[in-house]
Amino acid sequence: MISLAPVRTPRMNSEFDLPALTDGLVGDDLRDGDVLVVSSKFVAISEGRIVSLSSVLPRAEAREVAAKYGFSPQLCELILRESDEVIGGVPGFVLAVKSGLLTPNAGIDKSNIEHGRVVLYPRSPHQSAEFLREALKFRRGTVLGVVISDSRLMPMRRGTVGVALACSGLEGILDLRGKGDLFGNILRVTSQAIADDLSSAAQLLMGESDERTPIVLVRGVSETLLRGSEYESRDFAISSEECVYMRSLGYKAKRRNRQFS
Amino acid sequence: MISLAPVRTPRMNSEFDLPALTDGLVGDDLRDGDVLVVSSKFVAISEGRIVSLSSVLPRAEAREVAAKYGFSPQLCELILRESDEVIGGVPGFVLAVKSGLLTPNAGIDKSNIEHGRVVLYPRSPHQSAEFLREALKFRRGTVLGVVISDSRLMPMRRGTVGVALACSGLEGILDLRGKGDLFGNILRVTSQAIADDLSSAAQLLMGESDERTPIVLVRGVSETLLRGSEYESRDFAISSEECVYMRSLGYKAKRRNRQFS
Repeated sequence: MISLAPVRTPRMNSEFDLPALTDGLVGDDLRDGDVLVVSSKFVAISEGRIVSLSSVLPRAEAREVAAKYGFSPQLCELILRESDEVIGGVPGFVLAVKSGLLTPNAGIDKSNIEHGRVVLYPRSPHQSAEFLREALKFRRGTVLGVVISDSRLMPMRRGTVGVALACSGLEGILDLRGKGDLFGNILRVTSQAIADDLSSAAQLLMGESDERTPIVLVRGVSETLLRGSEYESRDFAISSEECVYMRSLGYKAKRRNRQFS
Repeated sequence: MISLAPVRTPRMNSEFDLPALTDGLVGDDLRDGDVLVVSSKFVAISEGRIVSLSSVLPRAEAREVAAKYGFSPQLCELILRESDEVIGGVPGFVLAVKSGLLTPNAGIDKSNIEHGRVVLYPRSPHQSAEFLREALKFRRGTVLGVVISDSRLMPMRRGTVGVALACSGLEGILDLRGKGDLFGNILRVTSQAIADDLSSAAQLLMGESDERTPIVLVRGVSETLLRGSEYESRDFAISSEECVYMRSLGYKAKRRNRQFS
């Protein structure tokens, strides 16, 4: 049995001590093997990764992208800074590659922050995950897993699902190659995105608007998944050459960073 | 608080009475508002949607697709029969559109069935969901939600996550447009894929190999999400013209069904 409990927090809009706040809110019964799923936005705010759009000076390339997709040159400038590559876009969105992953608008978001400001992704999500895990271990002696989660669209589907940016203390991807199924067929290509599944499960309680629930405590995750591993964003990525979607859609990776078509 | 409990079942390999089996296995404490997430493969087997590959006669087009992507003409024939359109592929996979959704191999799967046989998707997943929900209501007087789930890859990411094919008695997509966030910003495009989130949450217990857990009982889903709605696969779909991924990747929908490049 797996259980998910919401951890409600105050509304935050500038840098704060995430481990101290979390430690104060999770209550007394945190146990070894519990997993905290924490929204990337909450982590990013704790790290002060907030930018006032009016303070951003867009380069010529950013103005070009902005004109093409019909939105703010300042936001486009931040997207170019944050992403490895911009693949294309539609009005109001660009599809970027960040740390090897397809990420609309390079993860930059205008919601749940004051108007005129945006929140970037944490600078290094896996270091954020590891930092929170280590700090809570130091404070409480409890061995936890931590997942940093965001929400994202899937192609040709309506609505966002949870997605993991990084995790620590947990097997983020469960490799099933070589394992047998119920009929002894050997699985050849299967792996299971545990950290993404946990992010989606947590999204049921986090919501997307004013729920004030950026942390979800998950209990009962299989012990076999709780290990001292760290997964950074790149560990969740496969290249476009390996990807059935990108190859089927005829996408060819560009050689340079920060090109766009 | 949300809880997820695995419902272990016998291994099944031919048609069976899904509501009767489920009724016998879920135990006494099923409550109004509980949600059952059921694997599409288990539902499909209950409906006898199993095909021996040796019994399939491939058309010329299927032989062509098979030669191009290096796999069985019989399997390609089934994929053509099951899909609206084949977009492209890589060795061992074709990317098809089925009921408006991008679906590798049109959802046809060789795992967890005897060698030489494959399992198709349920013929009408939302009717399957509605049927199971109604039958359990009749048997027990309990008002449940039902989600039919599968697992699927996301582009440029490693590992599968849960995805919903249909649901009944549950708000599958939560529309948040017009709702305010914590700072009063109005959300303009956001909706949350509740049925997909539930499918991914359930996948943590279902696994992908020999877990014998094709049903997960979810308790504690917000009452606001439990409604008499039905969602079929098409309700989860957006067209390629609306999709930020497909448009950014330059995909143009083909006019006819069952074309491939």
